[in-house]
Amino acid sequence: MRVPAHVVVDWGTSSFRLWTLDADGHVLAERRSAQGLAASAAEGFEMVLESHLAALGVPAGVPAMMCGMVGSRSGWKEAAYLDAPVRLDRLAELATAVPAARRKVAILPGIAQRRRRHPDVMRGEETQMLALSREGREAGHRDRKGFDGLACLPGTHSKWVRLEDGAVERFSTFMTGELFQLLRTGSVIAPAVEGAPPVDPAAPAFARGVADALEAPETVGNRLFELRAGWLLADVPVEEAQARLSGLLIGMEIAGARQRLGRLDGTVLIASGAAAALYRRAFAVAEIADVARRDAETCVREGLHEAARIAFAPAGGGVR
Amino acid sequence: MRVPAHVVVDWGTSSFRLWTLDADGHVLAERRSAQGLAASAAEGFEMVLESHLAALGVPAGVPAMMCGMVGSRSGWKEAAYLDAPVRLDRLAELATAVPAARRKVAILPGIAQRRRRHPDVMRGEETQMLALSREGREAGHRDRKGFDGLACLPGTHSKWVRLEDGAVERFSTFMTGELFQLLRTGSVIAPAVEGAPPVDPAAPAFARGVADALEAPETVGNRLFELRAGWLLADVPVEEAQARLSGLLIGMEIAGARQRLGRLDGTVLIASGAAAALYRRAFAVAEIADVARRDAETCVREGLHEAARIAFAPAGGGVR
Repeated sequence: MRVPAHVVVDWGTSSFRLWTLDADGHVLAERRSAQGLAASAAEGFEMVLESHLAALGVPAGVPAMMCGMVGSRSGWKEAAYLDAPVRLDRLAELATAVPAARRKVAILPGIAQRRRRHPDVMRGEETQMLALSREGREAGHRDRKGFDGLACLPGTHSKWVRLEDGAVERFSTFMTGELFQLLRTGSVIAPAVEGAPPVDPAAPAFARGVADALEAPETVGNRLFELRAGWLLADVPVEEAQARLSGLLIGMEIAGARQRLGRLDGTVLIASGAAAALYRRAFAVAEIADVARRDAETCVREGLHEAARIAFAPAGGGVR
Repeated sequence: MRVPAHVVVDWGTSSFRLWTLDADGHVLAERRSAQGLAASAAEGFEMVLESHLAALGVPAGVPAMMCGMVGSRSGWKEAAYLDAPVRLDRLAELATAVPAARRKVAILPGIAQRRRRHPDVMRGEETQMLALSREGREAGHRDRKGFDGLACLPGTHSKWVRLEDGAVERFSTFMTGELFQLLRTGSVIAPAVEGAPPVDPAAPAFARGVADALEAPETVGNRLFELRAGWLLADVPVEEAQARLSGLLIGMEIAGARQRLGRLDGTVLIASGAAAALYRRAFAVAEIADVARRDAETCVREGLHEAARIAFAPAGGGVR
């Protein structure tokens, strides 16, 4: 097996994804598991990392670059937030070294927005935007140092980010995914959606939910209860109710992003799989023009590679 | 002890309240417990009721009128919903008899709104409005048969009801209280509000939350996450965060009620205790004029008395 240039790891609350990369960022091997934060804290972060690397036969001389909740206060080693506005290339320069690890291990910082009225935080998404920023630079516009525009990163806590010239200017997090899970499993809506398969992005009930929330977001608290009443009174199918629930929450998020960040045309949607398809459909309902899409997983890997390239460069950079 | 004319019971998901009343509705005695639906189903509904009545020495000849979730599918005996629009005096006429009970026991029906786009249900609140309706009639306007106007009944599932001439025309339920509990205990906001005392209606953070949600209800999903970020970044006190959480959700409810039901001036707020004070403050922030207040508990007791008076009248009425 070829010895990789570095290892990159996206280590979140509930998942662990590792890639070994060559110097150009090509994937040599990968590992995935459900060893998120809680599981890994119990087992030992280094033990989890090294067991995957042993399985791949990666020697101790190969350094590892990480991002995600592994750098939170309850992770392996806290990587303090950088304050927005902040240039994304600062991420790599300010990566935090994990002391006394068997190999060189660094964790990328998250970003904090310390505005009094709109405090916000991200940890992991900044790395995906590092890939976007690099892409802007490589596009070769002489007058541009990095990506300009809006990015939407759907998830448990969806992020909408305003990027200017390769820097994160400001951002807004929406609790969309978490609300969906809370309502789907722990509320009076639960029986109305119980056993429903994943939401079909083509479902008319999804699009109607998006449209209704965009038109009158203030009624969402009422429309949620109507899902229960529809189940009680009219036996609305669970897949229809769940598609509507998802549409209402995503529609409200888009309405909120518009209020916070202005026109959403040209937004880059950084998402994978089911979320990508749902948000594309929702963006169409909201008549957001010129949407581009990037695969979330590719972005996190490319962002980590970019950071590793800078931080582990023989000539300098280094890791604080 | 005087023998009561009848017994009335408000039997909900998580509480049991019983009063013995004379023929004019004056309270002779009362009993309260946490024997809600689940607890009572296990113990046996009749057993729960009779143990309280035995403690008060109420003979088997005294009939009992009930309302609330005791009449749901998972209650003692299902009392089928009446369809809105419906006159409130029909409630008593269509009370459902519990068969084979030791004494005459009747349960008031809830109300269903079977509109295709806005299905909704209530069970318990209709009885409080029966009291309001009776009050309108007693006010002695010759040209009025009952209360006209809007009623707001805060709770786990807050109801906003349009009443016309003693009939429930239409209503909208908001999941405000349930969302508050879900977010307070089971979400990433939980640590930001953990251990906070009940919300102080005079807290500036509560009023600001109401105002912010009224101004831009579509941003509530973002403002919720800001509560967590404020805790992480700025150590916002838990009582301030919880007051803001409550304000945001109640503000969004009021914005939604306005969208659904139009001008809210003159709304009768049917509430007790902490909810009454919070909603009065929120109504003031929303500049709702001419708000009247009725005590929720008094209303349910008076509504049940009115129903008992009609249904158990020696001369007729009767119970189906």
